[in-house]
Amino acid sequence: MSRLLPVFGAAWLLSMTIGCAATPANSPLRGTGDLGIVIERASGSVQVVDTTRRTRLASIAGLGDLSHASAVYSRDGRYAYVFGRDGGLSKVDLLAGRIAHRIVQGGNSIGGAISQDGRLVVAQNYEPGGIKAFDADTLELLADIPSTYGTEGKRSKVVGLADLPGNRFAYALFDAGEIWVVDLADPRKPGITRFKDIGLQPYDGLVTPDGRYYLAGLFGEDGVAMIDLWRPELGTRRILDGYGRGEEKLPVYKMPHLRGWAVAGRNAYLPAIGRHEVLVVDTDTWQEVRRIAVKGQPVFVMARPDGRQVWVNFAFPDNSWVQVIDTLSGSISTSLEPGKAVLHLEFTPRGENVWISSRDDHRVAIYDTASFALLGQLPADSPSGIFFAARAARIGF
Amino acid sequence: MSRLLPVFGAAWLLSMTIGCAATPANSPLRGTGDLGIVIERASGSVQVVDTTRRTRLASIAGLGDLSHASAVYSRDGRYAYVFGRDGGLSKVDLLAGRIAHRIVQGGNSIGGAISQDGRLVVAQNYEPGGIKAFDADTLELLADIPSTYGTEGKRSKVVGLADLPGNRFAYALFDAGEIWVVDLADPRKPGITRFKDIGLQPYDGLVTPDGRYYLAGLFGEDGVAMIDLWRPELGTRRILDGYGRGEEKLPVYKMPHLRGWAVAGRNAYLPAIGRHEVLVVDTDTWQEVRRIAVKGQPVFVMARPDGRQVWVNFAFPDNSWVQVIDTLSGSISTSLEPGKAVLHLEFTPRGENVWISSRDDHRVAIYDTASFALLGQLPADSPSGIFFAARAARIGF
Repeated sequence: MSRLLPVFGAAWLLSMTIGCAATPANSPLRGTGDLGIVIERASGSVQVVDTTRRTRLASIAGLGDLSHASAVYSRDGRYAYVFGRDGGLSKVDLLAGRIAHRIVQGGNSIGGAISQDGRLVVAQNYEPGGIKAFDADTLELLADIPSTYGTEGKRSKVVGLADLPGNRFAYALFDAGEIWVVDLADPRKPGITRFKDIGLQPYDGLVTPDGRYYLAGLFGEDGVAMIDLWRPELGTRRILDGYGRGEEKLPVYKMPHLRGWAVAGRNAYLPAIGRHEVLVVDTDTWQEVRRIAVKGQPVFVMARPDGRQVWVNFAFPDNSWVQVIDTLSGSISTSLEPGKAVLHLEFTPRGENVWISSRDDHRVAIYDTASFALLGQLPADSPSGIFFAARAARIGF
Repeated sequence: MSRLLPVFGAAWLLSMTIGCAATPANSPLRGTGDLGIVIERASGSVQVVDTTRRTRLASIAGLGDLSHASAVYSRDGRYAYVFGRDGGLSKVDLLAGRIAHRIVQGGNSIGGAISQDGRLVVAQNYEPGGIKAFDADTLELLADIPSTYGTEGKRSKVVGLADLPGNRFAYALFDAGEIWVVDLADPRKPGITRFKDIGLQPYDGLVTPDGRYYLAGLFGEDGVAMIDLWRPELGTRRILDGYGRGEEKLPVYKMPHLRGWAVAGRNAYLPAIGRHEVLVVDTDTWQEVRRIAVKGQPVFVMARPDGRQVWVNFAFPDNSWVQVIDTLSGSISTSLEPGKAVLHLEFTPRGENVWISSRDDHRVAIYDTASFALLGQLPADSPSGIFFAARAARIGF
């Protein structure tokens, strides 16, 4: 993997002396609103991509174990914070095409979030269980909050971390069956609110795009635990009791990602666990209103930004397919086969295109979401997650 | 007004020779996600601001008549397209701190929009009535669509231009009482759909944040005309027949801006015309559900990005005030007096702060939206509109 932007050599040294030190020699001045990264899980690298020209700008290696990696963005869109499976937290400079800073902050980690004001980056850890908050500039540790539960001092795996308005974060404790809401207005003095007995084995969580409802899917029993964060005094509520592995305990080939839940108009679309179905839920009543039959076990269920379409990918053996649901008719508009082992998809900020990673075909396919035309493909080394810089401006991403 | 970034001199010439030509000498590499502009209407200039450090980065003069000016952003966030009242269209480079390109495209203009894919910038004109579409890179004219109506070849003033998914645009014809939806997938061959007899004198319009509903407020009669753009075959529908100047024909000190309509959760909040009220409308039924008494005639009614708060400013003589509605309780949380002649407000992308312009106190005040604390003030020359670069990623802005 070569870097696009050489930062050493004569040009660099010369530029130091004339005051454009911060700009590598062949880096043009450019905005960051159309940048993004593609995770290359096998090689521990990320590609920096341009969604306007649909090109690769740089490849950056040395990020450790990137299986199941995810990323959040600095407020200015310049830096991606990449959370590796091995507890690595890398601050990647998209403009300079290099790692600005990197720490190993845990032993077994599964993602993170960034505060509303962009000052705190928070990692959620399986081992040792808990969350850690870091200064977004320096990656200095500011808060270490173990997920201790019960009477024996055990620590739970943490899942479903989501940022909330007001520099707060919500997450679920898989082993404890709890949801915690942590206020990090002063990260040195975290304020923790614990919601206990929310159900068995919450395995992932999300906050609705308005930051109001936190939902944790349960693996140990049927259903979803929900908190109305505008009215936390009401505690948790159980919804969708028919949700989950249900009566038959179906084999589950790959756990769906709740972060992929789509809210389109008044309805939420979510992957059924183990079933070849997408569930449609009315977010006013939180009742299930419909099930849509799909090709396989859904993994990501993601709304185009305008909510007119919901795109779905699948677990093995249907993982070469993507299906598109028309939310007006409730039926499948089209089925596409972008490549082998489709792991993730990401819409451009206003939704005109979607980028889809095919791990085993080593490429990212780019589609027009109106015509479903294939616009282009970029080679990538076992690509998984795709994360665009416009996430910096969104709540709960 | 001085530019922040000198682009001439020895350093510049030297840099030309070593390959960092595109970067002015003292311009550090930086992201654009936290940039914005403040319109200085009296001096025909804009300030470039940084919402992270809450500072001014540059001031750029020479933009013509900026009364009632508005702006949209390039896909990458680097350029603001500023639409002046005099028909001027200026492409402002936020990173270089200068005007990249400027044309005078009409005689009397009132705003514009940018296509979903970022390739087309469209201006709406009073005189000569119609819209014009320009190449976003070069500002080359690609389409000129006169707003001709009736049998005598008259041209209507155009208002309420909004971008829609699929490089389409919707707008209203004030004099004709029509709404047009134009498909500019091929700007050389525009596809125009006309909705006639929508009501008297549509004075402004907006599209809902999901791009689904286009609404035009009527000045000549009570009510709002609405089109479900997902089902255009249904034609226009009249809603809110009690809306508008109503029974008493109240004096109207300043027309409210529909673009400021706020959609929070299931409800939309909109300024009553002439009344000291904000109307709450259920976007599922499009029925009015409540009216909230406020301090004056509302002008902008804007939701914080998470929808928990709606901020309102007012026409003269109450235009030194801003009020905040708590959308959960439906009551006023607080009343602030940011300065004389408050003209506009803009939330930071994830809503932790709001920037408020006070024309007659020549400053922009920055508030924390959780505590309502004043975080800072920036001097500005008769500031009016404030537009942050994160608008690049939104539909209908």
